[in-house]
Amino acid sequence: MAAWTQRLAGVRGVLLDISGVLYDSGADGGVPIAGSVEAVARLKQSQLKVRFCTNESQKSRGVLVGLLRRLGFDISEGEVTAPAPATCQLLRERGLRPHLLVHDGIRSEFDEIDTSNPNCVVIADAVDDFSYQNMNKAFQVLMELENPVLISLGRGRYYKETSGLMLDVGPYMKALEYACGIKAEVVGKPSPEFFKSALHEMGLEAHQAIMIGDDIVGDIGGAQRCGIRGLQVRTGKFRSVSGCIASPPPTKSRVGHVFCF
Amino acid sequence: MAAWTQRLAGVRGVLLDISGVLYDSGADGGVPIAGSVEAVARLKQSQLKVRFCTNESQKSRGVLVGLLRRLGFDISEGEVTAPAPATCQLLRERGLRPHLLVHDGIRSEFDEIDTSNPNCVVIADAVDDFSYQNMNKAFQVLMELENPVLISLGRGRYYKETSGLMLDVGPYMKALEYACGIKAEVVGKPSPEFFKSALHEMGLEAHQAIMIGDDIVGDIGGAQRCGIRGLQVRTGKFRSVSGCIASPPPTKSRVGHVFCF
Repeated sequence: MAAWTQRLAGVRGVLLDISGVLYDSGADGGVPIAGSVEAVARLKQSQLKVRFCTNESQKSRGVLVGLLRRLGFDISEGEVTAPAPATCQLLRERGLRPHLLVHDGIRSEFDEIDTSNPNCVVIADAVDDFSYQNMNKAFQVLMELENPVLISLGRGRYYKETSGLMLDVGPYMKALEYACGIKAEVVGKPSPEFFKSALHEMGLEAHQAIMIGDDIVGDIGGAQRCGIRGLQVRTGKFRSVSGCIASPPPTKSRVGHVFCF
Repeated sequence: MAAWTQRLAGVRGVLLDISGVLYDSGADGGVPIAGSVEAVARLKQSQLKVRFCTNESQKSRGVLVGLLRRLGFDISEGEVTAPAPATCQLLRERGLRPHLLVHDGIRSEFDEIDTSNPNCVVIADAVDDFSYQNMNKAFQVLMELENPVLISLGRGRYYKETSGLMLDVGPYMKALEYACGIKAEVVGKPSPEFFKSALHEMGLEAHQAIMIGDDIVGDIGGAQRCGIRGLQVRTGKFRSVSGCIASPPPTKSRVGHVFCF
């Protein structure tokens, strides 16, 4: 425990990924990962600040929080940093009118955004809406633009549902990048701006926080590049072949390990 | 004309791309590009050897040739180098059993291939069959393999149909590469083996041939890397922004320029 105490010295806040850390999503709504409901409750009873930092882009924050509350989590909408609201802010700042290739579940987040005569494409985890026809339409919109702008809500490779591993938005972002010869702008983890925004909401500096996630690139790598400590859980999409983990593995593999704080 | 005569010195054979050079494909079967039927006829009357070198992977060679003959082209199945037969040969040589993510129109080319208990994925221009579900299945097959093998029939970014630009197999190949952290093996242009196979069929050396295509990467770049001269037409997917062309542009923009041979 001495080593862990040292590693966690000065930590005043915890950033928690949601999918694969708190729960595994699924067509049935998903299931909590064993110990995670209790871990969140215990964190909130501690002196630590807690913020949920997710790339969820199938569901609006309201729907996601409602689902997690039904699963027993102590969470409110204001505690969640998610890419859709950050994207809306960026679109407004730059006068961009998006063609949306997104899941119906998150479309309401863009209700107040002008989508007429698009001058960019916004892509998110669209699941079944990643049809050839929809991908081709997004491609054609980009190819018609003199300066094509592609904004991607995250760039995750895949995530785990109760039914198995599922392609995330990243592969489709790469497909459009290659087709159009462009580079997407990523909103969400691992973008530094996204982590900084979450830190700002917590009123903490990078060295005072730790990010707990299952994605070695999006969660751990992204956090570390901002000076935030990273801890990879062995739930969700974790695979022992996916790369080295950020810290020596704890003796158990659950987010419940934050109990030792 | 002097410059062109010099550029074509020693050429004894012509490799012709099909889609975007001879015709624009489409739901209605497609339409010949103006002058191309006559150009092929004239080439065949000349002393030059002619071979059709295509990445077509929606249609079997038989169906493609039947379509082109109905459009007026003088072409036979034995004159076509296409990726599906080359892929079957590769699968047999390496004892690979593919999970096929291909268009129904080309499935018959794999009739004699064992597809039970797959140990690789073969991807081709699947058009509407590039559904999320089908892409996710291919991804899951690859993730289950200890040494995932992804074989792609071409890696084109897009092609032109009568209805507009259409995503080709390349973007979907990139999506699976990124999702699985692997590199695909490409069968078809711009693979050197593919051009060498076409040259072998013609009985020519690389310096004796010229490749005529609309794709600066697949047709022109691929040919040039094998020592074959390349000539980009301004039909099909050609866009002035897609890169520099391989030779100074001719005064007209049609494949009909091969008339000047």
